[in-house]
Order: sequence, then C-alpha cells, then structure tokens
Amino acid sequence: MRLRNKPWANDRIKAHPQYVPGQPEQLKGQWQSRFAKNQPLHIEVGSGKGQFIVEMAKAHPDINYISIEIQASALVSILDKQIEEDLPNLQILLGDGRNLTEYFAPGEISLVYLNFSDPWPKKKHAKRRLTSPYFLAQYEGILPTGGQIHFKTDNRGLFEYSLAAMSQYGMILNQVWLDLHASDFEGNIMTEYEEKFSARGQVIYRLEAAFKVGK
Amino acid sequence: MRLRNKPWANDRIKAHPQYVPGQPEQLKGQWQSRFAKNQPLHIEVGSGKGQFIVEMAKAHPDINYISIEIQASALVSILDKQIEEDLPNLQILLGDGRNLTEYFAPGEISLVYLNFSDPWPKKKHAKRRLTSPYFLAQYEGILPTGGQIHFKTDNRGLFEYSLAAMSQYGMILNQVWLDLHASDFEGNIMTEYEEKFSARGQVIYRLEAAFKVGK
Ligand SMILES: C[S@@+](CC[C@H](N)C(=O)[O-])C[C@H]1O[C@@H](n2cnc3c(N)ncnc32)[C@H](O)[C@@H]1O
Ligand SMILES: C[S@@+](CC[C@H](N)C(=O)[O-])C[C@H]1O[C@@H](n2cnc3c(N)ncnc32)[C@H](O)[C@@H]1O
Repeated sequence: MRLRNKPWANDRIKAHPQYVPGQPEQLKGQWQSRFAKNQPLHIEVGSGKGQFIVEMAKAHPDINYISIEIQASALVSILDKQIEEDLPNLQILLGDGRNLTEYFAPGEISLVYLNFSDPWPKKKHAKRRLTSPYFLAQYEGILPTGGQIHFKTDNRGLFEYSLAAMSQYGMILNQVWLDLHASDFEGNIMTEYEEKFSARGQVIYRLEAAFKVGK
Repeated sequence: MRLRNKPWANDRIKAHPQYVPGQPEQLKGQWQSRFAKNQPLHIEVGSGKGQFIVEMAKAHPDINYISIEIQASALVSILDKQIEEDLPNLQILLGDGRNLTEYFAPGEISLVYLNFSDPWPKKKHAKRRLTSPYFLAQYEGILPTGGQIHFKTDNRGLFEYSLAAMSQYGMILNQVWLDLHASDFEGNIMTEYEEKFSARGQVIYRLEAAFKVGK
C-alpha cells in the first residue's frame, strides 16, 4: 500500500498504548488481558486502513480482534477509527506477520484473516507472499489444530498461487469462491481494496482453508 | 450434452470393434494389447465428440489414449474421427465413468482428463459430478500412487466444488489456472465446449491435482 509519509505517525501511535501496545511480544499468551471479555481471538494480517477489522469488530461483539499492520502510516488510520469507536474487542498491533510466533502462543488465535495481501507477482519474490510456506508455518504456529485462514483477493495470480501453496503445505480447502460478490455469501464486510477493485469490475476471490487435524 | 438421437449409432459402433472394444471389462489389466506400442496410458472421461482426445493422440504419439463416453450418439463422432485418422495410440470405450475400476486394473492408467464435465448445479445432484468423492475413488483405484487428474471447465460452480472436493478427499493441488487462455500455459488443446464458451467470453478454469503419496 503506497501511503503519504506521515512523520508524526509513530508519535501518535505511542500516545495510545491502550489501543496499540508498545511491546507486543510481552503479551504473548496473554492477549485476552487486553480485552473486556475473554472470547475467541481473530487476527487480520495486513489490515491497511482497517475498514474490514473495525467493521468486523462492530458486527461481532462476541469475538476479540487484533489488527496487525507493518506500516505506521497505514496503522494510524486504523487507530483513528478505533479512537472514534473505542471498541472493547479490538486491539491494534504494529508489527510484521513474519513474526507471529513471537507475538502469540500456540493456539492463542482461533482464526486468521488475510485480505488483498500484496501480490508480489515476480516468482523470485514468492517468499514474500503472505500465503507462502514460511507464513503458513507462522499461522499454523499460533492456531489450534484444525485452525482456519480466510483469505480474499482480487489478484488472480496470488489466488492461484495460494490455492496450490496451501494444498501443498497440507491444508484442506473447506470452501472456495471464484466470484464472491456474485455468490450467496452472507455478511461479507468489504475492505478498502475490495471496494476499489470490485468497483472497477474485478472479480473477488475468497477461500477458507484449515490446517489438517493430526498432520 | 444434448445430441440428436442417432438410432443407428450402436450398429455403427459394433461395426468397428478394432476401435471400440465390445466387452471392455475383459480388457482389464490388458489394455496395452490394444495399442501398437506399450507406453503410458491416459484416459479422458466424458469425451463428447472427441476433438480433445483425437488432437492429443495426434500431438503425443508417445502416449496411448482411451476416450470414454457414455452416450453412443456422441461416441460415433469420436469414432468417425478415428476412422478418418486411424491413430495407433487411440482406443474408444463406450461406458460409464462410474465403473472405471471394472474396466481398468489398479495403476493401469497414468493420467485422467476431465473436460467440461456436466456441472449438475443442484446440490442434491452433487453426487453425479465427475469430481465427487465416488468418482475420485474410481480414479484413485486405477491410477498409481501420486497419479494425477487434469481438469478444465468454464463452470464456476463446478470448479469451486471440485477444488474443495479434491482437497477434502486428500488430493494435492499441484497447479491452478483461473483464466487458462490469459496464462502462459503451453500446448493447450481445446475441446468443443472450450471453443464454444471461450468464444462467448467465458473464463476457462484448469487444475492439476494428485492423489497423495502414502495416503
Ligand atoms: C494491499 S494492502 C491491503 C489492505 C487491506 N487489507 C485491504 O484489503 O484494503 C496490504 C497491506 O498489508 C500490509 N503488510 C504487508 N506485509 C505485511 C506484513 N508482513 N505484516 C503486516 N502487514 C503487512 C501492508 O503494509 C498493507 O497495508
Ligand atoms: C458437457 S459434455 C463435454 C464434452 C467434451 N469433454 C468437451 O469439453 O467438449 C460432457 C460429456 O460427458 C459425458 N458423460 C457424462 N457423464 C459421463 C459418465 N458417467 N461417463 C462417461 N461419460 C459421461 C456426456 O455424455 C457428455 O458427452
């Protein structure tokens, strides 16, 4: 995501430690303490400006959410929404999806969302894709047995890659949508990218995949 | 496939036993005897009028092919092409994909092609889809360990179903194409349905999936 540089972003983030913890590694295994209620914990990796995760948190008060974003200048937009809403079931993590097992204990997270992740179309950059084996191992490391990933994108190459990569990793595809907006899927919450690309007539792909029980 | 009824079709088929064996079950385990050379054996289930399998047999003289079709009035079109070509590496089987393990011995077939299989869109007809678990078990029963299915279709619902069904059966997706004709896939041979639907602007989906080694 290309963003205007915001030199003040880090200061603004530091000023709101109740929403964005300063040392997320220290919360490993104890994230429930950051929420009003102890309930299932879902994360999104690469939230961008946060429309999806904020709307999800509003629509599902019975789930706790953590929005993970690596760019401070994107994260401040999530933070601004949360300052406005003050949702008791949303936390924000400034960090890298590459290090999930440093932030979370095994089984601490019950569902991982990936939305419109950067496609990294060149083959030599395949390792940077959020559905490449290294990242899948991170998700597996923080989910319980049978834990799921829900992934949406408009990018054909990334979706083709992800179907094969997840299958080859040993995950099971529970369901696949090749035109989400033409389907009878209920309760879809759109991300910023989803609004932009579907307005241009792009098809939206979606999948739900699970790490295999007893792998 | 809706076809003109051809009451003479069965007689024409019976008149060409060198191309369409009369009692295919009796060839179980011995199909190589029907070909000029002993070489890998690929089948297509539901060949329709046979354009794909005839062109494949011409393009790949080092592979033996069996075209399987349940409707005599479609099969005569395959037969007419083969009478014209007299390809030494093509046999035709009038039969039902439901009974593959009666026609072929375990491991006798090295690759299964499915092209534009009937979609059976209603959920209550899912069992009739050629990628439903019963059919997958038939393919598994005649392929070697790690044996593959190559499947093309324009039908979104059938492709979505097939990705999930194969994955849940325990197969691995080796590669997926969500717009075959826009990809760099080489050597694609079009089927009759593929020509028709792609001319109408439909996207063509393709996958290659393998039964797991050591399942
Ligand atoms: C293409 S944007 C999509 C944003 C949003 N999910 C949407 O659908 O509108 C991808 C986002 O993922 C973030 N990102 C990329 N790699 C990341 C990583 N390793 N860890 C956390 N966030 C990452 C980027 O900074 C960017 O904000
Ligand atoms: C929609 S047509 C596609 C024909 C061709 N593959 C193409 O792509 O142009 C499907 C074909 O599969 C055949 N078929 C359907 N079920 C079958 C079965 N169980 N065994 C063998 N053939 C079958 C039908 O008779 C029909 O000719």
